[in-house]
Amino acid sequence: MKISIAQLNYHIGNFEGNLQKMLRAVEQAKKEGADLICFSELATCGYPPRDFLEFEDFIELSENCINQLAKAAKNIAIVVGSPSHNPVVEGKDLYNSAFFLADGKIQHVQNKTLLPTYDIFDEYRYFEPGNEFKVVEYKGKRIALSVCEDIWNLGNENPLYTICPLDEMMPQKPDFILNLSASPFSFNQAEERKKVVKANVQRYKIPMFYVNHSGAQTEIIFDGGSLVMSPDAKIFEELPYFEECIKTYELDEVIKGKPEEHQQIVGKMSLIHDAIVVGIKDYFDKLGFKKTILGLSGGIDSAVVAVLAQRALGKDNVRVILMPSQFSSDHSVNDARQLSENLGIQYDIIPIEEIYSSYSDALKPHFWAYPFNIAEENLQARIRGMLLMAFSNKFGHILLNTSNKSEMAVGYGTLYGDMCGGLSVIGDVYKTEVFELAKFINKDEEVIPENIITKPPSAELRPEQKDSDSLPEYDILDEILFQYIEKRQSPSDIIEKGFDEKLVRRVLRLVNINEFKRYQTAPVIRVSNKSFGMGRRMPIVGKYLA
Amino acid sequence: MKISIAQLNYHIGNFEGNLQKMLRAVEQAKKEGADLICFSELATCGYPPRDFLEFEDFIELSENCINQLAKAAKNIAIVVGSPSHNPVVEGKDLYNSAFFLADGKIQHVQNKTLLPTYDIFDEYRYFEPGNEFKVVEYKGKRIALSVCEDIWNLGNENPLYTICPLDEMMPQKPDFILNLSASPFSFNQAEERKKVVKANVQRYKIPMFYVNHSGAQTEIIFDGGSLVMSPDAKIFEELPYFEECIKTYELDEVIKGKPEEHQQIVGKMSLIHDAIVVGIKDYFDKLGFKKTILGLSGGIDSAVVAVLAQRALGKDNVRVILMPSQFSSDHSVNDARQLSENLGIQYDIIPIEEIYSSYSDALKPHFWAYPFNIAEENLQARIRGMLLMAFSNKFGHILLNTSNKSEMAVGYGTLYGDMCGGLSVIGDVYKTEVFELAKFINKDEEVIPENIITKPPSAELRPEQKDSDSLPEYDILDEILFQYIEKRQSPSDIIEKGFDEKLVRRVLRLVNINEFKRYQTAPVIRVSNKSFGMGRRMPIVGKYLA
Repeated sequence: MKISIAQLNYHIGNFEGNLQKMLRAVEQAKKEGADLICFSELATCGYPPRDFLEFEDFIELSENCINQLAKAAKNIAIVVGSPSHNPVVEGKDLYNSAFFLADGKIQHVQNKTLLPTYDIFDEYRYFEPGNEFKVVEYKGKRIALSVCEDIWNLGNENPLYTICPLDEMMPQKPDFILNLSASPFSFNQAEERKKVVKANVQRYKIPMFYVNHSGAQTEIIFDGGSLVMSPDAKIFEELPYFEECIKTYELDEVIKGKPEEHQQIVGKMSLIHDAIVVGIKDYFDKLGFKKTILGLSGGIDSAVVAVLAQRALGKDNVRVILMPSQFSSDHSVNDARQLSENLGIQYDIIPIEEIYSSYSDALKPHFWAYPFNIAEENLQARIRGMLLMAFSNKFGHILLNTSNKSEMAVGYGTLYGDMCGGLSVIGDVYKTEVFELAKFINKDEEVIPENIITKPPSAELRPEQKDSDSLPEYDILDEILFQYIEKRQSPSDIIEKGFDEKLVRRVLRLVNINEFKRYQTAPVIRVSNKSFGMGRRMPIVGKYLA
Repeated sequence: MKISIAQLNYHIGNFEGNLQKMLRAVEQAKKEGADLICFSELATCGYPPRDFLEFEDFIELSENCINQLAKAAKNIAIVVGSPSHNPVVEGKDLYNSAFFLADGKIQHVQNKTLLPTYDIFDEYRYFEPGNEFKVVEYKGKRIALSVCEDIWNLGNENPLYTICPLDEMMPQKPDFILNLSASPFSFNQAEERKKVVKANVQRYKIPMFYVNHSGAQTEIIFDGGSLVMSPDAKIFEELPYFEECIKTYELDEVIKGKPEEHQQIVGKMSLIHDAIVVGIKDYFDKLGFKKTILGLSGGIDSAVVAVLAQRALGKDNVRVILMPSQFSSDHSVNDARQLSENLGIQYDIIPIEEIYSSYSDALKPHFWAYPFNIAEENLQARIRGMLLMAFSNKFGHILLNTSNKSEMAVGYGTLYGDMCGGLSVIGDVYKTEVFELAKFINKDEEVIPENIITKPPSAELRPEQKDSDSLPEYDILDEILFQYIEKRQSPSDIIEKGFDEKLVRRVLRLVNINEFKRYQTAPVIRVSNKSFGMGRRMPIVGKYLA
């Protein structure tokens, strides 16, 4: 038996686009002599469809897609993920299903049993857990279908769940396992995924074909990396990361196995780099935009974002504006200009002093008795945001946000100023990681002028300002933030690790009192296990550590 | 037996504040001779605590609160909601529990079984469903404890659930039911609540004490309206809406019942009015702010918000800025001024032409070849937003957002302009309802100048502009939006109701392509069953109807 796996980039709600893409894959698989082709989770409607699932019309469009695919399932079987109706009144209205299509018809529907409802996942909001486990027979082979999380409770060791779906199927003696996934990227996900697939195959001793989604849906990146694993729990093949790929395998050869090739370990910064590039590219493609605008301050954050944007969209589609004020240092403008030239992107310089003066004049009758403070600092950041949005509106370019995770965490940014933008590019990258990313970008040649990387970070909103005036050094700050945000440690846990008590309490308080700012921030491309946005839901009026 | 019910306003994560408030209530109940006092759901930590529940430290602080309350439970029993640890490894780490405290100790923990996971609710993200049902004995009475949603699957008629917790308890012959709720307000919730409590009592024929939370947690309002119902399913007493209240009842009298008093039916606009006033007040109180700033355009939206703010915070705590441009009509400024005088609030006038000119000058080298368009319109809205934010930053006032639900739905608003603000006051009120609300406000005297209500709505961002230039009339628009947003109808369903097909498709497309704007909007005070924000989760890059 020959099996094709299709690692494709779907688009939420773009039924026609997804269908045509799958039909082309079916044709290709047929040409390669495949008996069966497997797509990924919720491939018809795209993942995650979120509350579109509450629209009956949306479900009908998914079903229509399944019917079209069923018609194409002649001389080939098609396995594809799609929502399906729960036929009984009890329970949620929908299942998250794997459809087995053959001979022009739906032959079997296997429902996902384990429904992730944590972090960015809301599956129990929509779906009823599957509770029937039936192996499919096709061309003399017995096939165990599973959907994503279904393989993540091996031997019931995951306390979140009480059923291990594949354990339930094993008495029916399947010959191999198909897993339809839409498993989001984080920089350590590929290793986790390999471990889990390996552990499953070690337990069941039959081959597994793990088929992942590739591409980005707003903030969530799917990195592909689909796996074919032989019964000896060695990787037969791993598909590439961050790109579409269709490949066909002879089952007997997978069963026979082969000496495991040297597994390429891709470094963390390389993965983050590629994930963000895909994140930008797909955000623009899927919204139907081509061009971006962003502000270059001469600092490292906007420099890194400019590079990533240029790599995602091409140099002709990136335009940058340099907006110096009286507080900008000369080198800031020069560094930004040099970077633009290195990237081959259009740059313009618009000084903001005169606009700033017009605000000062308008506000003088009300502000004259009060000293220069955060109001005036924020004015500068907001003038820049407004100028960028004017370009965005005039030319139809999407503004990219350049805030990093450290400053988003502690609220070191101006709402409606430097926090503007349709997509937060590095909002899940701590400042210390931004430096690493810049060095990764510069590994072969000096794309980012060295001075941008080496000078002390500054917002340049008042004379001689440095980030370290108001924040601890980033290596300390980031470690405290990591312990709190990623590890959910308490203040006393963090203090026990040797950090200064006052500092820890101050940092945690800053994180919590700045929920209101993050609430209004653009979606953040997710590259870690705990990113700001849908995956981290915090009350704004909360008093905890605030 | 005498039973006190305490309808209180908790603050998320403010353990000390919540504890002290409950301890005072216990003292009051004792003075009134109560044998038992009942608080509401998750009263220790406040509802909804969201991802704070993932912090072990947060759970320990809740437990500490329970221990303190247990110590106070002498000569009185205390029933209180709080998270509790799931003692077994399997399943989620926490339960959403009702604690029964007496004789200085925890006597019983009854876990919530039905965990709402839809709309604004995420309970299955955190909690394991309870699966044991034990009636508590105290002073010769048998008490059935239930938590909020537990009474919303009466006789298993709610397809979301498969257990009816009170059915499970009835074989133990309870004498009465306590329900600890944190049931969010919408304008039809009070009626729904009464129906559900009545249906439960009709089924079980024993009294029920339904204890709700009162007050606001950012966007979610709890309206109180706690109920005491006699076994004949007649209301013995209903506590007031939107305020704290502690009352003590003699159980025998509740059992005996009394002729049902004429139930005051509070009108929709009155409820929405009061809910929003509480929403504003608690947002400021719980964040520790006193004063607000907002822009008055002379239009109806900002007028209504100014009135609501003045009623929530007091006239000395509301400051408004009038920011006319060359496109503002004379009457706009006059109407806004008149309104400010009616409300007794400070107003200032800051014309924006000169600031606008400074932007024009700065942008001329880049924009000269292009006609006036949305870029220039948005500039005006953003200059206003920036001026307001400058006041906010200078004086520590919170900016209130004045967008209504209709314009938020179709994206008729400027991101970082009129969409600025810490809290969206009327973002869940359709434009046609804003008019009703204005008339309700004016029912006894002309608070809002009549001209503001009668003139045709206009953004006044270009000469002679009217909303109806770009949008259908609001009565048609709002009905289409309601069918799509609240009723989740498909385009063809809505067209079948007699709306023009082109218009329907255009409106639905506008809703869907503007998700990116709503993603960056302030939290919206929720007054309907389907508000923008946490209760409506939509993909940004979705292609469905877009």
